[in-house]
Amino acid sequence: MRVNAYAAPAAGEPLAPTTIERREVGARDVLIEIQYAGICHSDIHTVNGDWGPQPFPVVPGHEIVGTVAEVGSEVTAHQVGDRVGVGCLVNSCRECDNCKRSDEQYCTKGAIGTYAATDRDGTTTQGGYSTHVVVDTDFVVRVPDSLDPAAAAPLLCAGITTYSPLRHWGAGPGKKVAVVGLGGLGHMGVKLAHAMGAEVTVLSQSLKKQEDGLRLGADDYFATSDPDTFKHLRNRFDLIINTISAPIDVDAYLRLLAVDGTLVNLGAPPEKVSLSVGSLIGRRRSFAGSAIGGIAETQEMLDFCAEHGIAAEVEVIPVDQVNEAYERVLASDVRYRFVIDSSTLA
Amino acid sequence: MRVNAYAAPAAGEPLAPTTIERREVGARDVLIEIQYAGICHSDIHTVNGDWGPQPFPVVPGHEIVGTVAEVGSEVTAHQVGDRVGVGCLVNSCRECDNCKRSDEQYCTKGAIGTYAATDRDGTTTQGGYSTHVVVDTDFVVRVPDSLDPAAAAPLLCAGITTYSPLRHWGAGPGKKVAVVGLGGLGHMGVKLAHAMGAEVTVLSQSLKKQEDGLRLGADDYFATSDPDTFKHLRNRFDLIINTISAPIDVDAYLRLLAVDGTLVNLGAPPEKVSLSVGSLIGRRRSFAGSAIGGIAETQEMLDFCAEHGIAAEVEVIPVDQVNEAYERVLASDVRYRFVIDSSTLA
Repeated sequence: MRVNAYAAPAAGEPLAPTTIERREVGARDVLIEIQYAGICHSDIHTVNGDWGPQPFPVVPGHEIVGTVAEVGSEVTAHQVGDRVGVGCLVNSCRECDNCKRSDEQYCTKGAIGTYAATDRDGTTTQGGYSTHVVVDTDFVVRVPDSLDPAAAAPLLCAGITTYSPLRHWGAGPGKKVAVVGLGGLGHMGVKLAHAMGAEVTVLSQSLKKQEDGLRLGADDYFATSDPDTFKHLRNRFDLIINTISAPIDVDAYLRLLAVDGTLVNLGAPPEKVSLSVGSLIGRRRSFAGSAIGGIAETQEMLDFCAEHGIAAEVEVIPVDQVNEAYERVLASDVRYRFVIDSSTLA
Repeated sequence: MRVNAYAAPAAGEPLAPTTIERREVGARDVLIEIQYAGICHSDIHTVNGDWGPQPFPVVPGHEIVGTVAEVGSEVTAHQVGDRVGVGCLVNSCRECDNCKRSDEQYCTKGAIGTYAATDRDGTTTQGGYSTHVVVDTDFVVRVPDSLDPAAAAPLLCAGITTYSPLRHWGAGPGKKVAVVGLGGLGHMGVKLAHAMGAEVTVLSQSLKKQEDGLRLGADDYFATSDPDTFKHLRNRFDLIINTISAPIDVDAYLRLLAVDGTLVNLGAPPEKVSLSVGSLIGRRRSFAGSAIGGIAETQEMLDFCAEHGIAAEVEVIPVDQVNEAYERVLASDVRYRFVIDSSTLA
């Protein structure tokens, strides 16, 4: 089946309307009519070629919410009419220890990304900036009806990428959590950590978004451009979630951790980072990384969001504004996530 | 009281006989007649001035085993004639959250080292290369009678420095643990991890000590000078304990970790180390540091060693061979710890 989509024809070129082929609905497949697709900074990195050569044309989009339009004969978890979501992954080996533990993102044979990846059948995956997508039932999650579908779309990447490390490192009552950067990921980190019961501090370049940060659930807000911040908050936090991909002064942030505290990077700068091992040893601190989350945990996150009435703060746009939106994401001019209204693709 | 000791008179100069003053036994003090004092690489770093200026003359030694000769009026935990030990710490604030949790090594106000430190009363601490030492009862541990006292001495630093991270990061049955470097710390790491039930691999520069490593409890032994080691062991370990203070290729070791694995540094190179954040994110790995252990945990470690019949492999020397022993430690020519027979100081 041929469907409308927006694709980058080559590295660094503007996205443009096109049509792409979606596979026949197999026995374990779900055909989803897409309602909303979030714009993630990864989409921009990918189509700009920041992460190396890509199989252009590339249709980005891995924050997908839609409605089930058809299911294969073996699909039992989803039914026509259900509201569902697809995140960053559409396949994995299902057999390795990591997959069996539902850590599909760490699949030993390599998890398959939602776009610009070579699927296990040899085809190239194409993402959510389109009207429909066909996805294996195991990689489709249920989006609770109580969530606004546009605001739910960014949960599929920004939500799970922050939820997973917060859970893994025990954010909750009595824990002091800092979120570095108040963008697409950061604003979800604040909402989620707050809902988990942690004491939340935002560490942002400036105080420009302070009012927003406090409204979203932060208890404190500090500017990292102010050197006093790093003196004042020394040895304070149990967990720091760094949502900034640009290199940071790792030692400066490590010194903000209490004994047994962990600094978790969610994005990877292309350059190596350097740090003093003494910053780790002095308080048994850890420097860690985390990639999105598994499928079961993505479902758990969506259910948690529904229970707590949490979703992303979004600006919904028609698809023909996607290139302008990319510019604004690069200029940090969005609060906090663009979401494409997929009906404008029809 | 004036006692015999061996001290470094200035940075880089050979140690020589001297006498030092020990304080009066206060109400909470224990006077210990020292039997054995281990030689730790830190002793050498300190007297060589590698770690900055020191309050010379410095009497090193923080792996002390001896017999209680006198106790203050308020001391109930130790009695004259008991075999006891003193490790790297002789004081801390006792009031901060870290001290209250018996993480005295991370005392917010700064734990007091056994030598070359300014104690809370303003005096300079002097270590175990002497006939006697006076230590606050809270920093004196019981050395079980079943342990050989010379072989027990290195447990007070090398033992606890490896025991603590092994326990903290869950070494035990079903866990794959690698120990980098088979020296004073490394050989204790192997014995302890094996006794805890973990599967133990030694990663050493060469295969020179392989036979020893296997005898000490390792299941596997690989040379890090062989690049195939890093291919063969990829994604293998749950925990890597790095006992090497020299800078290592952090990324190469991180890639040997399975999902949720941790690389723990026990020593800090003076230079910064660099790493790719991608090595962390790709498997939710952590790079961490750990400093010795608390007093309660040091007691637990000694009891564990007694229960499992574990102690250090030592070469006992008279004190007048200490400078030669330093040379041999620097040349990695000791299996695996020198211990001074303190009777030679009398």
